[in-house]
Amino acid sequence: MNPFELDPRLAADSIYITDGPLSQLRLMDDTRYPWLVLVPRLAGASELIDLGDEAQQALLAEIGSAGNLLRACAPCEKLNIGALGNIVRQLHVHIVARNSTDAAWPGPVWGAGSMVRHDPQSLTRRLEGLRAGLQPGFWRLA
Amino acid sequence: MNPFELDPRLAADSIYITDGPLSQLRLMDDTRYPWLVLVPRLAGASELIDLGDEAQQALLAEIGSAGNLLRACAPCEKLNIGALGNIVRQLHVHIVARNSTDAAWPGPVWGAGSMVRHDPQSLTRRLEGLRAGLQPGFWRLA
Repeated sequence: MNPFELDPRLAADSIYITDGPLSQLRLMDDTRYPWLVLVPRLAGASELIDLGDEAQQALLAEIGSAGNLLRACAPCEKLNIGALGNIVRQLHVHIVARNSTDAAWPGPVWGAGSMVRHDPQSLTRRLEGLRAGLQPGFWRLA
Repeated sequence: MNPFELDPRLAADSIYITDGPLSQLRLMDDTRYPWLVLVPRLAGASELIDLGDEAQQALLAEIGSAGNLLRACAPCEKLNIGALGNIVRQLHVHIVARNSTDAAWPGPVWGAGSMVRHDPQSLTRRLEGLRAGLQPGFWRLA
């Protein structure tokens, strides 16, 4: 099998934060919502339910850790967790912090309006905040 | 804690199929997409990541089994799995069989247009097909 390569659309729309046991943890480049994406480093993976048991367990643990990180950095009323992949087939799991004041509430963020990218300063600040909050011993940089 | 009670909006928009180790498995009453919903029988549950480890494991197994059931009954190009809960806070996980010919493609199904309910005959047929395909020994009726 070919080595893992990040889909170019995910690469263009999100920024690397760190690696977990299975996945890259990335920040979506969209200031409208605090929004993380997990991308398992498995070439050819597309459906969550087709992963082996061990990979599914690892992904579940990463979703939990990423969700708690997001809530700690950006208080929210509800987390939205989604694995869609209708456009980008490479398996990726969205974890989005939602508030009733946000642009798409109460609808989903996917396909709603256009992304509003970070400026360099706010991106640096956001990445620093997220990296400082990483669960110790779980993520590569923590 | 109070006993589990299904949210009235979920009750109105979906039909009981069977029970798994943790959750009710329900069919969304929307013929536009083959669409299952898992509702953990846990009073007060809202965020997937706040479930205990054992419940998370059980839910993951149910997502896998429900996803395979859906694919077997309704061939699709992509599964969409989502736990949103912006409108109905009771924890529920959507598993939707998507095709590039469906009404909302490639966008998400949530919030897209209006549901098209089953007529009694097609509902009976659909429920029979789903119940016949349940993974033996895993779901209550299988």
